[in-house]
Amino acid sequence: MLINCVAYHQGTKLADIPVEAISDHLSQPDCFVWVALRDASEAELAQAQREFGLHDLAIEDARHGHQRPKIEEYGDTLFVVLHLVEFSPTDELRLGEVHIFTGPNFVLSVRNRSTQGFLGVRQRCEREPQLLRLGSGFVLYALMDAVVDRYFPIVDALETELETIEGQIFERNAGRANIERLYELKHKVIALRHAVAPLLEAVTKLHGGRVPAVCASSEAYFRDVHDHLARIQNSIDTIRDTIGTAIQVNLSMVTIEESEVTKRLAAWAGIFAVATFFVGIWGMNFERMPELKWAWGYPVALSLIAGTCGLMWWRFRRAGWL
Amino acid sequence: MLINCVAYHQGTKLADIPVEAISDHLSQPDCFVWVALRDASEAELAQAQREFGLHDLAIEDARHGHQRPKIEEYGDTLFVVLHLVEFSPTDELRLGEVHIFTGPNFVLSVRNRSTQGFLGVRQRCEREPQLLRLGSGFVLYALMDAVVDRYFPIVDALETELETIEGQIFERNAGRANIERLYELKHKVIALRHAVAPLLEAVTKLHGGRVPAVCASSEAYFRDVHDHLARIQNSIDTIRDTIGTAIQVNLSMVTIEESEVTKRLAAWAGIFAVATFFVGIWGMNFERMPELKWAWGYPVALSLIAGTCGLMWWRFRRAGWL
Amino acid sequence: MLINCVAYHQGTKLADIPVEAISDHLSQPDCFVWVALRDASEAELAQAQREFGLHDLAIEDARHGHQRPKIEEYGDTLFVVLHLVEFSPTDELRLGEVHIFTGPNFVLSVRNRSTQGFLGVRQRCEREPQLLRLGSGFVLYALMDAVVDRYFPIVDALETELETIEGQIFERNAGRANIERLYELKHKVIALRHAVAPLLEAVTKLHGGRVPAVCASSEAYFRDVHDHLARIQNSIDTIRDTIGTAIQVNLSMVTIEESEVTKRLAAWAGIFAVATFFVGIWGMNFERMPELKWAWGYPVALSLIAGTCGLMWWRFRRAGWL
Amino acid sequence: MLINCVAYHQGTKLADIPVEAISDHLSQPDCFVWVALRDASEAELAQAQREFGLHDLAIEDARHGHQRPKIEEYGDTLFVVLHLVEFSPTDELRLGEVHIFTGPNFVLSVRNRSTQGFLGVRQRCEREPQLLRLGSGFVLYALMDAVVDRYFPIVDALETELETIEGQIFERNAGRANIERLYELKHKVIALRHAVAPLLEAVTKLHGGRVPAVCASSEAYFRDVHDHLARIQNSIDTIRDTIGTAIQVNLSMVTIEESEVTKRLAAWAGIFAVATFFVGIWGMNFERMPELKWAWGYPVALSLIAGTCGLMWWRFRRAGWL
Amino acid sequence: MLINCVAYHQGTKLADIPVEAISDHLSQPDCFVWVALRDASEAELAQAQREFGLHDLAIEDARHGHQRPKIEEYGDTLFVVLHLVEFSPTDELRLGEVHIFTGPNFVLSVRNRSTQGFLGVRQRCEREPQLLRLGSGFVLYALMDAVVDRYFPIVDALETELETIEGQIFERNAGRANIERLYELKHKVIALRHAVAPLLEAVTKLHGGRVPAVCASSEAYFRDVHDHLARIQNSIDTIRDTIGTAIQVNLSMVTIEESEVTKRLAAWAGIFAVATFFVGIWGMNFERMPELKWAWGYPVALSLIAGTCGLMWWRFRRAGWL
Repeated sequence: MLINCVAYHQGTKLADIPVEAISDHLSQPDCFVWVALRDASEAELAQAQREFGLHDLAIEDARHGHQRPKIEEYGDTLFVVLHLVEFSPTDELRLGEVHIFTGPNFVLSVRNRSTQGFLGVRQRCEREPQLLRLGSGFVLYALMDAVVDRYFPIVDALETELETIEGQIFERNAGRANIERLYELKHKVIALRHAVAPLLEAVTKLHGGRVPAVCASSEAYFRDVHDHLARIQNSIDTIRDTIGTAIQVNLSMVTIEESEVTKRLAAWAGIFAVATFFVGIWGMNFERMPELKWAWGYPVALSLIAGTCGLMWWRFRRAGWL
Repeated sequence: MLINCVAYHQGTKLADIPVEAISDHLSQPDCFVWVALRDASEAELAQAQREFGLHDLAIEDARHGHQRPKIEEYGDTLFVVLHLVEFSPTDELRLGEVHIFTGPNFVLSVRNRSTQGFLGVRQRCEREPQLLRLGSGFVLYALMDAVVDRYFPIVDALETELETIEGQIFERNAGRANIERLYELKHKVIALRHAVAPLLEAVTKLHGGRVPAVCASSEAYFRDVHDHLARIQNSIDTIRDTIGTAIQVNLSMVTIEESEVTKRLAAWAGIFAVATFFVGIWGMNFERMPELKWAWGYPVALSLIAGTCGLMWWRFRRAGWL
Repeated sequence: MLINCVAYHQGTKLADIPVEAISDHLSQPDCFVWVALRDASEAELAQAQREFGLHDLAIEDARHGHQRPKIEEYGDTLFVVLHLVEFSPTDELRLGEVHIFTGPNFVLSVRNRSTQGFLGVRQRCEREPQLLRLGSGFVLYALMDAVVDRYFPIVDALETELETIEGQIFERNAGRANIERLYELKHKVIALRHAVAPLLEAVTKLHGGRVPAVCASSEAYFRDVHDHLARIQNSIDTIRDTIGTAIQVNLSMVTIEESEVTKRLAAWAGIFAVATFFVGIWGMNFERMPELKWAWGYPVALSLIAGTCGLMWWRFRRAGWL
Repeated sequence: MLINCVAYHQGTKLADIPVEAISDHLSQPDCFVWVALRDASEAELAQAQREFGLHDLAIEDARHGHQRPKIEEYGDTLFVVLHLVEFSPTDELRLGEVHIFTGPNFVLSVRNRSTQGFLGVRQRCEREPQLLRLGSGFVLYALMDAVVDRYFPIVDALETELETIEGQIFERNAGRANIERLYELKHKVIALRHAVAPLLEAVTKLHGGRVPAVCASSEAYFRDVHDHLARIQNSIDTIRDTIGTAIQVNLSMVTIEESEVTKRLAAWAGIFAVATFFVGIWGMNFERMPELKWAWGYPVALSLIAGTCGLMWWRFRRAGWL
Repeated sequence: MLINCVAYHQGTKLADIPVEAISDHLSQPDCFVWVALRDASEAELAQAQREFGLHDLAIEDARHGHQRPKIEEYGDTLFVVLHLVEFSPTDELRLGEVHIFTGPNFVLSVRNRSTQGFLGVRQRCEREPQLLRLGSGFVLYALMDAVVDRYFPIVDALETELETIEGQIFERNAGRANIERLYELKHKVIALRHAVAPLLEAVTKLHGGRVPAVCASSEAYFRDVHDHLARIQNSIDTIRDTIGTAIQVNLSMVTIEESEVTKRLAAWAGIFAVATFFVGIWGMNFERMPELKWAWGYPVALSLIAGTCGLMWWRFRRAGWL
């Protein structure tokens, strides 16, 4: 589905143009065309391939989707795959993709399986013609920057989730819930990491060293994207590391809790074993058991039992078992 | 066993030719020969070595089999070893191998211990003569692409298996079954990883930087293979990582379950210890135990015991022990 | 908030100058200006950008804050981000930032969210004009050196904390407290690591190999900073590694303690089970139980029970269960 | 102890020569001398050093032994240290060493603390004069190949051992035996790894890139050795990884078993606690306990107890506790 | 404290000279001065700095001490920091340091906090003038070699300690002692690793590739030092790895032991529960319990109890629980 197709001249918008008119504008100097598609059909991709002369393999990737983030050069055209990450209404991570073809005088972005648009990016770019004049490379930067900026709230949400779990990790009886939540969180972190890590590696090709011609004028901007990605990657690694430790700590806490329960069990079992032993003694049927005949025998026996058990309770208490 | 032996001229099939006629076609310009063997005998390998002038060490590797995936240059000939991975009927992973010798004007593939053929690859290539014109390097790509594409369903199956296990990891009493299945899954993942990881490393030699002459015209295609392998490797690493975490989580769950059982044991032991203590008291043989003579002594005693135990049961219940 | 703004000529302080006079001094040879801001307002940053011709992206980073430590070149200007780490009164780690812009003839430092000033650095520099003559690069070194030196007491505090925990790790009943403190310590270590690790990597750009012009004359000094950072990084890695082992060891200790408790429980349960069994025997109602009629039956029975239990106690004791 | 000392000319054996005649042959063109020593004495090493002009440090290493595998260049002479690994009669790994000095026109091998000879290597070389003509570099290859080929059965034995353990890891009551065997296996793997890993790294110097002159003509062969080592290294890493997982899995199994035992303990304890409670009731001495006077009181009571316990047993059974 | 100060000419000792005469000898050709200090005072360091023209930063490092091992170039002078590791009388690791300044015609070594001297090194050097003629670089080698050689007995001691622990790891009731000793050993290993790892990395600068002029003539010797360090590093890594596994194995053993104790507890509890249940039956007060009146009732009952318990004991025994 075509979202929009606009021609720019020296950083200023010329006009919305029909797809058929693209080739006319491509031939003009200082001019570039910026086309945005969404969940593009086979026909639209084929048309785009014809108009911009895109490579078969890149188009095939765009058709299949489910690519890992990457930046590939086909002649003087860059093919960029980015993951779009967003929370679904049920708080799960949903993955979309955007494929960006960037040539010397065109940008074609194809967005798949995502509700997040890039209209805001286009508007901001059009408000800064002095930057848009840097050409299609700057548009590529603006799109990548928008995608990467949307990772930050995801990272924040995961960090918040982790902190919530951490707040309960030393509470009693939370072991089962914690471990489930940690495991789920780990899955989310891995999904986000798959969006970030390959991209971080790929972006290094766009600044420093040999840079593709189309990005040369915006090199400092791509370094900025790289820096953002490095920061996100850092946070992700910290979360991953912390989850690992938290799982270990949670296991320790469960073991400690079990150990405490075992101690209490041992203490009470001990107290009642003693009491039961005592009552068993006076339940014996020996003929000569003088205390059985005493007037105060029964209350004395009960007091003795209660006293012994109380003493034991107090000692266990002091030892921290009860 | 010879499967087929075909000569191509400028990307178009000339004819099925007998093995003896190979050398005639090798000398013609723009012409290459594509030979496919299966579980080749010593004699067939020796003949092929003579026809194509292959290196002793490569032929020896092909004869022994059980090589790790690799790409080796012997002069202007490439020797490629790929693992073929397929599920056996009993759902185990079975490994085969294909050895591909690629020279400037020939391709020789030897398939071992595998039911998967490459007839489809040949047919697709013959339908696209404009690509097949790229020469023997493109045939090598087509074969590698076919092998690598067959890894994807394996990875999917392993991921599905992992998800099934994950669905049971937080269920009770599944600890033993889970750990067995996780361990078995890990073995499969390692087997697949051995097919993928060395190949991923080796394929980097076929695109970017100094590329063997025979692959030069198909460089972008080999980058595509590399990209697929990187995606598979990524999935494998995620599965491995997740298995590790799942084993830890499973241990935590088992410990948590044990802790819950211990608590229930402690609770019931406590309740019955109290009850037994009470009945022990009134089993004592003191002469002066007035309650024994009461008309309602017995029912009162039973009620007292029942009440105390009920109270304990309720408190344990509230504490989550029962 | 402007802290101070001073012009230097050949390493000697000329005068405190108003911000408006900066551009006058920038044009003079052998002269540089050193400006220090604190929690700079938008207006101050904008003014500084105009005076020194700073890059948009760098200024934007300085405005947003919360950057990871880094060293970036914009033309002949270096943009350095450092983390300031200090203990809050409640013994938590608090992060601040300092952003340093270093051009051929100016240094601009902007300190954010930190109580630690750099007045001492300026005074020490002014006392050594022969070093300050090296120019703005040396000032950058002096500031970085001051920041990095402040990491050492933090590392020491963390090491001390770790040693305190280690002192208790083999004590009984300390499992829960230890694991909480280890987890908290790990968080602090991660925070410090985020300040050190990226900086360590970035500083390698300032010595050896191709060094930015502004730092060329102070190369040996930056190697010194690098060396300090490597030492800190080393200590951090050791602490991290030790925390990991300590968590494992703590879990082992908890399990060992539980095992000991289980043994004592088993021993006492055994002793009382035997005693209860004995008293049960003589509580049976058989008519012919001759010992019940013996004059010394009761004391003999009690002695027998006490003897048996004593014997068991002694054997459990010897086996280390009690 | 001198094993043999032979002069070769253009790949063909000239004659067994006495050690004193070595220098005569060294000066002849297309001629090289191949000397094999075993557990060489000081005097033999000193003589060899004089004859071949070997470096002090290399001779000192050969004298001391217990070197790690390595390949060192001293001028145009290569000094190679290889580990010989063999099973002792008591199934332990025994380490020997072979030191190989390879100059342009000589090979000197010194074998220490090993029963494995290299006579077979010499015979095979002499049967292939066209290869032996490649010179001393090829002899070095033949020796290294022989050593590395002997690692394969060791790896196979370790893999078989691991599979045996794996076959018992999910059996009950095997936890203690498994963990002991895994630990022992790990030791063997580490020993083998010490033989392989440094060598793998060192062999890369003998093929690809800048190769020592003496090996130049046999480069493809050294790549083959490298490939074999990489395969062994791969297997070793898999074993190591699997041992790690197996230890974790074994711990899980032990914990699961303990959990099952705890459940059975809990179940039986519960059943007997109930039974004991019941008999306690009718052991009470209340005067008015009408059931005690019933004719069928006793059998009914016994049946009631048996019934209750049977019901509990059946429910525990269904819950999988018994 | 000055230990000695000697001038050498072409590898032969000229004379012990006073510190003031150093500058006279520095200017003579083929001559170098070797000064050894111990726990040098501020004044001595300042004098040495003047005599040899040492860099401020290096002197500052030497003054502060507590550096990590490193090799730094200041112009044509090398500054080397080495750790001296020795066992204290109480079997703890004690760290000292030696700082070595090596210029084209001087060597200055400063030893701190260590009882180990280098007199032996000097004597051995003086006995081999043909090597000492290589100049100050060879002296540096001789000192480094001496330091590194002293690491070997430390490594051996740690390996012996580890083997002692391993010998007890599968013994019963040793869990607590083992874990304490493993933890302590780990600390020692980390300390030694801090001495070795950074040095290993730094020494690579002294052989192969671009070597500082002062070391050029002794390159092969520094490779030898590197080789020794690599061997030590290898051993350390193995110890570390083994400690990690040993901690895991120890935890497994503790869990297994606990599991065995639980089983014994379960078995005995079961036996006595049955016995207590039986005596409880005949303690009931039903009027019609015919067996109570039998002449042989009591002995039969006791035999029945003993028989049942014996049967249970035998079955538990066979199941390996007792």
